[in-house]
Parts: sequence; structure tokens; C-alpha cells
Amino acid sequence: MPEFYNKLENLYNSNMYPLHMPGHKRNAEDIVLKDISKIDITEIDDFDNLHDANGIIAAAQERANKLYGADETFFLVNGSTSGVLSAISAVAGENDTILVGRNCHKSLYHAAYLRKLNLKYIYPEYLREYDLYGKIDPDTLGNMLNPSIKAVFITSPTYDGISSDIAKIADIAHKNGIPLIVDAAHGAHFGFSKELPENAIKQGADLVIHSVHKTLPSMTQTALLHVQGKLIDRDRLRRFLRIYQTSSPSYVFMASIDSCMDYLDGTNKGFFDNLIKYKEEIIQATANTRHIKVFGNDIINDAAKVVISVKNTTMTGQQLYDILREDYDLQLEMAGASYGLAIISGLDTQEGIRRLIRAIIEIDEQLSEKTDNSYDEMLYHNEVIMPIYKAWDSDYDILKLDQATGACSADFINLYPPGIPLVVPGEIITQKLIDDLKRFIKQGMNVQGVLDINGCSSVKVIVKK
Amino acid sequence: MPEFYNKLENLYNSNMYPLHMPGHKRNAEDIVLKDISKIDITEIDDFDNLHDANGIIAAAQERANKLYGADETFFLVNGSTSGVLSAISAVAGENDTILVGRNCHKSLYHAAYLRKLNLKYIYPEYLREYDLYGKIDPDTLGNMLNPSIKAVFITSPTYDGISSDIAKIADIAHKNGIPLIVDAAHGAHFGFSKELPENAIKQGADLVIHSVHKTLPSMTQTALLHVQGKLIDRDRLRRFLRIYQTSSPSYVFMASIDSCMDYLDGTNKGFFDNLIKYKEEIIQATANTRHIKVFGNDIINDAAKVVISVKNTTMTGQQLYDILREDYDLQLEMAGASYGLAIISGLDTQEGIRRLIRAIIEIDEQLSEKTDNSYDEMLYHNEVIMPIYKAWDSDYDILKLDQATGACSADFINLYPPGIPLVVPGEIITQKLIDDLKRFIKQGMNVQGVLDINGCSSVKVIVKK
Repeated sequence: MPEFYNKLENLYNSNMYPLHMPGHKRNAEDIVLKDISKIDITEIDDFDNLHDANGIIAAAQERANKLYGADETFFLVNGSTSGVLSAISAVAGENDTILVGRNCHKSLYHAAYLRKLNLKYIYPEYLREYDLYGKIDPDTLGNMLNPSIKAVFITSPTYDGISSDIAKIADIAHKNGIPLIVDAAHGAHFGFSKELPENAIKQGADLVIHSVHKTLPSMTQTALLHVQGKLIDRDRLRRFLRIYQTSSPSYVFMASIDSCMDYLDGTNKGFFDNLIKYKEEIIQATANTRHIKVFGNDIINDAAKVVISVKNTTMTGQQLYDILREDYDLQLEMAGASYGLAIISGLDTQEGIRRLIRAIIEIDEQLSEKTDNSYDEMLYHNEVIMPIYKAWDSDYDILKLDQATGACSADFINLYPPGIPLVVPGEIITQKLIDDLKRFIKQGMNVQGVLDINGCSSVKVIVKK
Repeated sequence: MPEFYNKLENLYNSNMYPLHMPGHKRNAEDIVLKDISKIDITEIDDFDNLHDANGIIAAAQERANKLYGADETFFLVNGSTSGVLSAISAVAGENDTILVGRNCHKSLYHAAYLRKLNLKYIYPEYLREYDLYGKIDPDTLGNMLNPSIKAVFITSPTYDGISSDIAKIADIAHKNGIPLIVDAAHGAHFGFSKELPENAIKQGADLVIHSVHKTLPSMTQTALLHVQGKLIDRDRLRRFLRIYQTSSPSYVFMASIDSCMDYLDGTNKGFFDNLIKYKEEIIQATANTRHIKVFGNDIINDAAKVVISVKNTTMTGQQLYDILREDYDLQLEMAGASYGLAIISGLDTQEGIRRLIRAIIEIDEQLSEKTDNSYDEMLYHNEVIMPIYKAWDSDYDILKLDQATGACSADFINLYPPGIPLVVPGEIITQKLIDDLKRFIKQGMNVQGVLDINGCSSVKVIVKK
């Protein structure tokens, strides 16, 4: 086999343990499918058509919608990205305004660009004690609604595992006749255990996007879009699903989603028990660490997310991430400023979970306290002077970072992961952002949208007229 | 395993032989990958990021571009569809005009809708003798160019395997300073044998889209986008590739593309020899049939496409398709009005090819001649009164088919496959189209865009103001 494949296979055969997506953890060949070369077909007689489903694909989608309690469910073969693009495109058109959580995925910003939308932002509360973004406040959201708003779009749960009160937000939106779209890419496992929050469809959202690969056993790039109620034009939704997804959808992906639904539907009940048990083990075993804190269910109400905080220690989140990787062969999903994020599932192994526990305890023993390492909020309240769709297509200059204060950004600047924008095209670049960007770059973080021009950090800014 | 998977596995275990996509023919587990559950990962350290590639994905893409002779090649995980959307979006914006072959894939029309483009159509010649659409005439195309045209977009080879003179068309476009985009979804195998046409990149196109699953051994939904020269803004191209493709791209897909490139790069030389040999066997063995004609290389200059014509016989293309399926367990790719289309590859089996030959000879013996079954052109030269992006979003009425003459269509109407539109939103519905639609429906063809309202065929038309 070629090098690319060999590198993937070597990873599988190595000691490196995956505390990250996908949820199958490369430990579920019976669920995720093995002999895929035998089942990879195209649309032929009796095998239905994803874009006009009325046979076996329709039946498979129907089982999924019953599991989640939606009116209709669509299989997505181009990830949650295609669900977000389709959902937004179905509800809003040129010059329409939607109210969105600022902490949303880049696909939402891309949809706003493609469909020429104006975005009004609501910011989640910042939990300074934990260096985490928290919930969207329903009352604040309610106060921001007005008849010109075509839809509300929020992310819940977040990458870190924090859920907003979807039931209350849905209620407020609906009282205003406005549909609620929930990017629940990280919440496809919700509602299948009493230890987990209810899923966003059952809580009343009109459109819900679920990645099935992130926390459940399905192939990477597979997702679901659920719809219910009368606020969404289903014809337009189908139109955009056909536009943003390939006309040659993978039967392997569809079979993988269906296999995952079958698993949820009862072929394996141990998955959620295992997940809850693993999370509980980690929390209990690390309850007495002196410096490192694994946040409990009171903060992270999602068993799949293990937030390992090194706040108020001499260590950064990135350092924790690197030590876990280099000294313990534990690959985390992400490093935050003062924490590391592990994603676990019911398909993790006892050995992997114990290794994580041992690592946390050992690292904790070597740590010292440091009380002055508070981190700033990562969501900037930038002044907006132009909508994204105008700004991203404007003529631009490239300025050195130091010269860009007060200029209007012509591009997105993101930290990846999770890829939530620090600045959006059409927003003013502040001195604080520049200072922060310089620090992130120095710390070796993955900053997208800052160019290296002859060794000098530079950004795209809109030409003043 | 659940029913969906079982149905796919039963198909594999059945006697039904695949004369259709994908090119691996479910007969290449060593190339298309077997143990995919072990290699399905997410973006972690050392494994690069498709949307910002500079590691193993960049290296894999580089090998692909060397094979095809492009400046740069991008792996596509959302099919050729995402390549078409990205290519068009990179070259044209609101109110721009592009010159496009009318026989292009629906993704081109979708791009025109999303980006608010005006389309100017060039029609391929109609080969009445064969009931096939032929080449795009370079001189006609040259006469249609003017400085307001932002790009030329043509499909070559066609679904049926007919290639236009890309070198000449590229030359004409470039003399006018206009980029040429070639949807060569069906031509990823070109250029790898002297018996096949040269690939569109080597012939000078600026942007070329290749499905690797259609005629080569790679998983369904995988494709490539190649770019060369200075007429394409690479930054904009990358922007749109990021927009139209999931932020969780499948490593299985990327490994499958890379494995296919490795195969092309030398691990197997027999693929193309086999393909040429199979095609030649079919042509020679059926050379003396009385009624059925398998078109030779003089008409279909693509070994992967076997066009089996029943023109001037008592049989239709659909009947041929059905008999092959029901009596011989041979699944064709598509039925045309007077022909069936098989897609073959170097991974077909000798048994499958011989079964097709035997079937053609036996069916031919039972056929009678009929000289009056000429078929009309399927590309309509409809009057355009509104661009697609206005028409598809206009208020519409639903009219019975018989009452729609002279109305402006508010939707696409397609025959699937291949899904080339008969009418596009914004075009006038003619009496001839209505008569043809009624015939297609009666013949049981798959007509998309005609609604069944209480048993009555109906269409969406724009409300007159």
C-alpha cells in the first residue's frame, strides 16, 4: 500500500491512544463496516437515490428520524457543514438578518457569505473561573429578537460540551414566529441515556444538525439533518441539500450512518453505559489532584467531553496536550489556553481510560501553582462596518500586523481548532486582537488568516476608498 | 448487520454483474481499501488538514498533480459536484456571464444559481444518425466569445464518451483571455494509455474536474480538481473548496484517492491494457450483429464507454436495459432513448464481458428492424426570459402540464440519468416539451421536476405580474 495509507495503518498499530474523534475509536469494525470495497455502488435499480429518496434510503432515514423524534431526517454525506449551509440557505436570502451565536462554526459564516446575509451576534457568557464559554442566555436572546430576524442559529453543545437551554430558547423564538436552528454537531449522542441532556429536536428546535461521527460510531464526514414543525420550507431545504452535496453520494457512508442508527436502535445497549462509566471513572480517580481539575458534570454536562484544566498552574493547555502525546501516547482532540479536551465514547477501552487517569495524576504531581495566568476571552466584540459578503470580496491590501490597528479586516482570522473566528471580514481590527495574535503565534498555536510575508506576520485589510 | 447493509452485501453476493460505476467494480479490495474502520481518523498531529495542506495530504495531492501534469491538484471529498461549484465560484460573481455547454451537469446550474450568474449556452452538435450528442464546435464557441464572458465551461468527455477538441477550445479561449473549465468527471482515466484521448489538463484547460470513482478504482464520491496557468485566482479557488466541502473530510476517501494515484503511478500496468482489450473484444464479437450496433472508436473515443444501440429496431433503450437486467443479470449504467450505456474498466472480469457479448448476440437474433423510430434532440433551445437565480426564487403557481404552454418555468425539469435539464428556471415551456414530457412519463422514464398532483402531471410556473 502507498505511504499515505501506511501512515494511517502505522498509527493504528502504534501505541498512540485516540482521545479524539471519531466516536468509533477505530475499535468497531463490525459497526463502522469492514469490507467496504464490496458495497461501494452507485444509484442503480432498487437502491434508491439520496437526492430523491423513496426506497431503501428513505426507509433508513425514517428509522433515524424516529430515533431522534423528528418529522424528517436527512443523511448528510458532506458532514455537518452541508447541514449548516442547507439549513441557513433554506431560511434566509439576500439581505436577510439572522441572529447567531458568535461561537459558531465557520460553515455558518460561509453560509452568510454565500447567501449575502447580515449577522447579528449573541455572545455566550464567559466563565472566567474556567476559561470556557458557557451558555447562550435565553432572556438576552429574547431581547434581541425583532420581526426582521429570519432565524436564530446557535451551537449547543459546544465543542467543550456545554449545552444551552434549547427548550427555553425554542419557546422564545417560536413566540416570535422565528425558527431555531441548532448546530448540535457534537450532540448526536444526546437523549440516548438519562445521564445525558435531551436531544435538540425533542427540546423543540426546528432544524438540528448532528455529526454522527464525532461522538457515535459512524465514519468521519457523516451527519444528519433533522427538521420538524411548520416554520421551515421543506422544499427549499431539499433544494439546498441537493446543491451542497455531491450527486454521487457514497453508499458506504449511508450504510455507515444506517449501521450506527441500528446500533442506537438496540443492537448495543452497552455504549452509553460504558461512556457514562468511563467519564465517572476519570472524574472520581482525579478528584484529589492538587492542581489539575477535570471538570464535573455541573460544568460539562456531556459525558463525551473531558475537559482537563491546568488553570492556575505553571502549565498551559498546549503543554498539557504535548506532554500527554509525547510522554503517554495519548492524543487529545484539542488544546485550549488553560485546558486540554479529550473526546471519549463507549467504544474507548478500559486501558486507554486508565492511561489517561494515570497520566493526569502523574503530571499533577509535578505541577506547581501559579495564580496569575488568567486568560482573556477569545470572542472579540469587534465593530462591524460591512457585511461579510461585501468585505470578503473587497479589494484588499496586505499590512504588517503592527500596522493594521483600526483597519477593516478583509479575511477571517481563526484559531484552529475549534475554528471560531477572532475577526470576521468587515470588522475593525483592534490593538488588543493584534497583541493577542502575536502571542498566539509565538506560542505556536494554529492561527489561520495571518500570512507570513517574508517572515513578517501580515493580514489582509480592506482598501480605504 | 442492518437491512441496508445486507441489501448491499446481497447484491455483491448475487449474480448481478455491474456494467456501471464505480470503476473498481467491487473487485479491488487491495486498491479501494479493506480495513477502513482502522484508518478513519480526524485531523491530529502529523496528519495534515485537507483545507490547509502542508504535510502528508499536500504530498499526496502533489503526486496526483504530477500524474496529470497540473500546477496544483486538490482532493475532493464531496465529489465532482464540489469541484464544479468551486471552479465556477472562483471565476465569476454576481451578474457575470459564463459560456456553458447546455449538456452540462446540474452542479453547473446550481453554481449559477448560488453565484447569481447569467448563462450563455453553446449546444453540442446532435448526431441524428446515432441519437447522441456530439462535440462542442470550437469555431462556433469562438464566435460566441466576447469580453464580458468570464469563463467557458464545457463537459468533455460526455457521459456517453464523446470528447471535444479541448486543445483547440483552450487555445481559442486563451486568445480571448478567458479561462476554460472542463468538467471531465468521466475522463479521469484519459492520458494513461495511447489508446485513450489526452487528459484535459495536458490539452490546456485551466481548471479540470475528474471523478476518480467513475472510471478508475477509487471510492464513490471521490474526485480531483486540477488547476494550471495564471487565469485562475488560486486564493479564491481555495476559499470555495473550503466552503463547499466538509470541515471533517474523510481520511478513508483521501487514502482511497491516494491509493488510486499509486495504482496509476505504476503499481499496476494491466488496468488500461485490460480496459482496451475488453472494449475491443466487445466490438469485434458484435461486429456482425444484424440490428444492434456497439459504436466503435470512431464515434465513442473512450474505451470505458460501451454504447449499445438498438436504433432502427423494435426495441427501445429502456427495453434493452430491462432485458439485460432481468434475463442476463447485467446492470447497465443508463438507458438512452435508443441505446444502453455500459461503463467498463480494467477491473471488469472476463466472465462479465463475455456475458455482455453473449447477451447482445442473443438479443440481436430476436430483434426485428423498424425504420421509423427516430428520436428527437433532448436539448431544448428554450427562450430565456429570466436568469436562473431570479426565476428559481420567484413566486410560483402549479399548473397542469397541458395548461403550461408558454408559461415560464419556475423549476428544473430533468431526465435522470444523466440529469441534463430539459428546461431551466426562467425559460419558456413549449408545447413540444410538454408533448415529450408526457411521452417520457408514459414510458416510465425518471422525470424530475414534474409533480404528480392527484394523479395529474403538473409543473411549477412563475406567477405573472
